[in-house]
Amino acid sequence: MRNLKITLAYDGADFHGWQVQPGCRTVQGTLAAALARIVGLPAEDELPQGAGRTDAGVHALAQVALCQTNSPIPAANLKIALNDALPPAIRVLAIEEAPADFHPRASARAKTYRYRIFREAICPPFLARYAYHHPYPLDEAAMGAAAAAVIGKRDFTSFAAVDAERSARLKEGEVNNVREIFASVWERQGEELVYTVRGSGFLHHMVRNLVGTFLLVGKGTLRAGDVARIVAAQNRTANPGATAPASGLYLVGVEY
Amino acid sequence: MRNLKITLAYDGADFHGWQVQPGCRTVQGTLAAALARIVGLPAEDELPQGAGRTDAGVHALAQVALCQTNSPIPAANLKIALNDALPPAIRVLAIEEAPADFHPRASARAKTYRYRIFREAICPPFLARYAYHHPYPLDEAAMGAAAAAVIGKRDFTSFAAVDAERSARLKEGEVNNVREIFASVWERQGEELVYTVRGSGFLHHMVRNLVGTFLLVGKGTLRAGDVARIVAAQNRTANPGATAPASGLYLVGVEY
Repeated sequence: MRNLKITLAYDGADFHGWQVQPGCRTVQGTLAAALARIVGLPAEDELPQGAGRTDAGVHALAQVALCQTNSPIPAANLKIALNDALPPAIRVLAIEEAPADFHPRASARAKTYRYRIFREAICPPFLARYAYHHPYPLDEAAMGAAAAAVIGKRDFTSFAAVDAERSARLKEGEVNNVREIFASVWERQGEELVYTVRGSGFLHHMVRNLVGTFLLVGKGTLRAGDVARIVAAQNRTANPGATAPASGLYLVGVEY
Repeated sequence: MRNLKITLAYDGADFHGWQVQPGCRTVQGTLAAALARIVGLPAEDELPQGAGRTDAGVHALAQVALCQTNSPIPAANLKIALNDALPPAIRVLAIEEAPADFHPRASARAKTYRYRIFREAICPPFLARYAYHHPYPLDEAAMGAAAAAVIGKRDFTSFAAVDAERSARLKEGEVNNVREIFASVWERQGEELVYTVRGSGFLHHMVRNLVGTFLLVGKGTLRAGDVARIVAAQNRTANPGATAPASGLYLVGVEY
């Protein structure tokens, strides 16, 4: 059995997220269908697993997925065949042979996400799917200070989507909400304000909830100093920040 | 009655072209509906006329449309209200009061179109809607020579969409296919090959047919010297060039 590490980019606006859902067009489902056409149905109907289960509308510059196959097709040929079979909204950037114990999520050492906010009054129609348009005043320096306050190893429950099933598993000690953030920074890039965060892993909605909280700091509703208190509360209801819109978010890359 | 000159940008991938068609989402129809909500239905149900009737999938950086209204709403306020009412795929960039005799098409002195070809092997998913992906070899210098060969005042029937109704009007002498091209140039812009053409006006499909013909020159099927012969034939069937895909084409601007 070959383990193939597939690196892919996609325009999330066209999909109901990464993960297969009945009746929805998803990236995982579309990739699985293209793989089935080229290398045949996988053993035990296993879907290609992804490093990050991006939500509807979230984009990827370099998502990583695993394909297990007995097909002898060389990786370079498979890449060309997959790009022919996939819609233009999904592109395979690379395919490499991976070790037998490789798993796109479990083996990841770090992931980087980016969030783009377009700051000018009129957002070009060509950016509407690819950034969050927020032309109103923001204290960008305060947002930078707030972003720095989440660096480190902490329990990020205050920034996680509320999920009854996961809450039960948390109580059982099967999972935990401790993650380490290595870098967290806001930068001005021309007409955009861009957040880049690199961490050991991210909880569901964590990056969008971080951005939503930083936006409240930018608006003056919260102060940068409030962020440490919100983290310490370990409770989503202690965080008044909304989940920022999906359109601005990108999975930039995964490190192994 | 006020004559309002509206400059707008749009992502044509989301629309069945500019011109209203029953049962289709068009830019003109969407703009008309937004105007009706804000300034009321126009006199005699007249639709906002555009400078260029862009086809399905064709984009605009600065289309010009005319709105005739008795509404007293100041132009600056109307711009804000329209951008609130319109989908993000259409943005109003400017609204100005225009003279009573202003007509977006009849008053135009020149129009500029651009065509983007993405040349690398893998087209990023974020460009798939906004450029034509052609990663195969092209003699770009020959394409430049071919583009220069169409500059001047000529009959461009060989590059016009075949249209029975228009052919009848041509025979009656009601219209003619003579247009003047002021500039016609291919340029390398990083990973893209970009065609820019500025002319007195353009026939239906003319820019996409020019690009399709230049692509045959790039592929070596035609020589740059063949273009003058194709123009002189004044017949679309004398031109083996295909109509290039809509996704790469932009109405860049209109001069008055």
